[in-house]
Amino acid sequence: MKTQDLTQLPHVVIIGAGFGGLRAASALAKAPVRVTLVDRNNYHLFQPLLYQVATASLSPDEIAQPVRAILGRQKNFDFRLAEVRGIDLDKRVLQTNDGPISYDTLILAAGSTTNFFGNASVERFGFGLKELEDAGAIRNHLLMLCEEAVHSPDPERRQALLTFVVAGGGPTGVESAGAISELVRNVLPQDFPSLDFSQARILLLEGADRLLAAMPEDLGRFTLTALKGKRVEVRFGAFVSGYDGRVVTLKDGDRISARTLIWAAGARAAQVVDSLPLEKGSQGRIKVLPTLQAPGHPELFVIGDAALLPDADGKPLPMLAPVAIQEGAQVGKNILAMLQGRPMQPFTFHDPGTMATIGRSQAVAQIGPLHIRGLFAWLAWVVVHIYQLIGFRNRMLVMIDWAWNYVVYDRPVRLINRQPDCVDQPARQPAD
Amino acid sequence: MKTQDLTQLPHVVIIGAGFGGLRAASALAKAPVRVTLVDRNNYHLFQPLLYQVATASLSPDEIAQPVRAILGRQKNFDFRLAEVRGIDLDKRVLQTNDGPISYDTLILAAGSTTNFFGNASVERFGFGLKELEDAGAIRNHLLMLCEEAVHSPDPERRQALLTFVVAGGGPTGVESAGAISELVRNVLPQDFPSLDFSQARILLLEGADRLLAAMPEDLGRFTLTALKGKRVEVRFGAFVSGYDGRVVTLKDGDRISARTLIWAAGARAAQVVDSLPLEKGSQGRIKVLPTLQAPGHPELFVIGDAALLPDADGKPLPMLAPVAIQEGAQVGKNILAMLQGRPMQPFTFHDPGTMATIGRSQAVAQIGPLHIRGLFAWLAWVVVHIYQLIGFRNRMLVMIDWAWNYVVYDRPVRLINRQPDCVDQPARQPAD
Repeated sequence: MKTQDLTQLPHVVIIGAGFGGLRAASALAKAPVRVTLVDRNNYHLFQPLLYQVATASLSPDEIAQPVRAILGRQKNFDFRLAEVRGIDLDKRVLQTNDGPISYDTLILAAGSTTNFFGNASVERFGFGLKELEDAGAIRNHLLMLCEEAVHSPDPERRQALLTFVVAGGGPTGVESAGAISELVRNVLPQDFPSLDFSQARILLLEGADRLLAAMPEDLGRFTLTALKGKRVEVRFGAFVSGYDGRVVTLKDGDRISARTLIWAAGARAAQVVDSLPLEKGSQGRIKVLPTLQAPGHPELFVIGDAALLPDADGKPLPMLAPVAIQEGAQVGKNILAMLQGRPMQPFTFHDPGTMATIGRSQAVAQIGPLHIRGLFAWLAWVVVHIYQLIGFRNRMLVMIDWAWNYVVYDRPVRLINRQPDCVDQPARQPAD
Repeated sequence: MKTQDLTQLPHVVIIGAGFGGLRAASALAKAPVRVTLVDRNNYHLFQPLLYQVATASLSPDEIAQPVRAILGRQKNFDFRLAEVRGIDLDKRVLQTNDGPISYDTLILAAGSTTNFFGNASVERFGFGLKELEDAGAIRNHLLMLCEEAVHSPDPERRQALLTFVVAGGGPTGVESAGAISELVRNVLPQDFPSLDFSQARILLLEGADRLLAAMPEDLGRFTLTALKGKRVEVRFGAFVSGYDGRVVTLKDGDRISARTLIWAAGARAAQVVDSLPLEKGSQGRIKVLPTLQAPGHPELFVIGDAALLPDADGKPLPMLAPVAIQEGAQVGKNILAMLQGRPMQPFTFHDPGTMATIGRSQAVAQIGPLHIRGLFAWLAWVVVHIYQLIGFRNRMLVMIDWAWNYVVYDRPVRLINRQPDCVDQPARQPAD
């Protein structure tokens, strides 16, 4: 197809190069449409492994793959590096930092962002874990704290420097707490022989009374035991009410001196969704029809974390990659049906199971009626994640890094990137 | 040795974790001294491969290795992450951003920085290539230009976006120009099928009348032919007089519309050297005695790019890794001699040869009387550089990336990192 031909075709614009957006784009490869994918990053981020970048196990490059490298060979595909600032549903135009982009059909796959629930102090001084920049910032921060602690003569200050608080007992919180524990207890003592890491504390705070609430209860209990084995202090019924970069304050009045708060206690639909005049449900997600269209807007499809669709039991489908991927595929089919005047199909989710890793040789997995835990679940987790990673190079490098970590208890990527001096950027850490 | 014992020992402080500083530190492993290495980064950077990070061949992590991972097991070694802001030679104290550090003996191995020869416009809008941040900035910039060009309807603007100017015909300039040519001609066309890269221009500007002036003339001529084969336009007698981010102005009045200027035309001793009340020679380097001591300061040793020492012919030893490494080893021996009351030895340089790569299967090398060029020199270059890289993981990953690049003409690391919004940071590109 030549460019001239393409411009005559209906223009399908996809916002977001996450799991759903990519799948939707490739599902439209053979359709008589022109596809433009818009993202503010030029890469797809494999978010499930983000916590491993944050804890120095993997390099940022290993879990990010340029969109053009993935889809650049698709004839009817184009990519736009731009940040979407608004959507005019009536005029069918996106406002971006790189000018307007008009569409005939829009697939909103903008994903989710960290939900600080309006707590400004936590947002300013705590770390989210959604973007590559978040992971890089956490890695820099953890390593800097050790550099500071090793030359600090004040034991109280050292204790605060080596206290790491993770809020949220879901998969991200569990995985982060487990990975920080291994970093701090097994890896960093080799780098800082004069620093006493036995005084280091890792706390995992959860508001409810169990971990991994989306998984079966026995797997949550196994996870709790495994984390305790790693000397992670798990506290239930614990709600963070504030953080000033020095002290985490809990709702019950308890105060924890800690220089690190990783906020894994909430997600909400991406910001671009907020301004749309559409009905939203929990977490700011757009309520969609079973065809994945927005009510009243047949030209607008919403998928993934930004969409709210109940499953057969009436519970909202979770913010997970498999949901987004399957919805992306369905949208591709529905757009084709729309163009051909055939009826669209309602979306049904086929649950492939869920898993979470706790650390070295320890994970939990639910696949249908099966509850798996321990080494076998961990091996399954490794295989599944390497398989799902995009790009042969990334798969190979991640495999090598994991094998390396496993054998020599090393974390290869212990670099502190210097940040440009941003005078206007509020400091994450208040001055002493 | 316990910490208590160590504090009684003479304190040797090393500024800089480059080739010279690392070698000096390890040369003192068995000496009855306490060694502290100070660097503003927590890693050693393998600068010879920096241009490959800038051109998306290698990941930043692959050419940087944490200092603590390299030397953390050395009993008498300590590391301080700090930026040296001044040196009080009389009081024997460093001023750093993290407080004062006093020493008994100082090894100044601070290296060199880009020399813009006072040209503020080139410094503001051009790119140096000395730090990991420089390489990352160039990579982001090159990829952003293509994202901009692919949606630009203006042919003149597109031409400027795809014109890449490299100033300086030494190894860094030659290697950068060759690598940009391969990136632009072989790799990016796959990502941007609708962009006409045949109009792309890569210019290498050199003030003198030959390339690789430090190497034999026949190798310079071979390099020129090889670069021409890669459609790099080499201009001799070309001096840059200014750059505004849009147009490179030459001394002869010629103007080149280009959005990229990489400045590889000069190096000078690191800034911390400037304020020292010591005699400097060319490039701001400190004139040192044959024992590598600064005149009048027996407790101050200067090595590597920061030191100026003539070779047997009276020419200054070049700013190259082998010089720094051998000087680092010599300083270790001399400090031991000083402690034991033995006479110090003068430094003599044993030239292992020099090499430069032009691109895929093409390099030049001089080893003693041997002049090697083409495939064989390139294979030698590959082996030498993988051997010199520090860390087993980095060696393996670089090998894989190079093999991958070689076989499939790919550049794996084509990510654009988003920069934090720095309002106070002057923009590299002026607004349109």
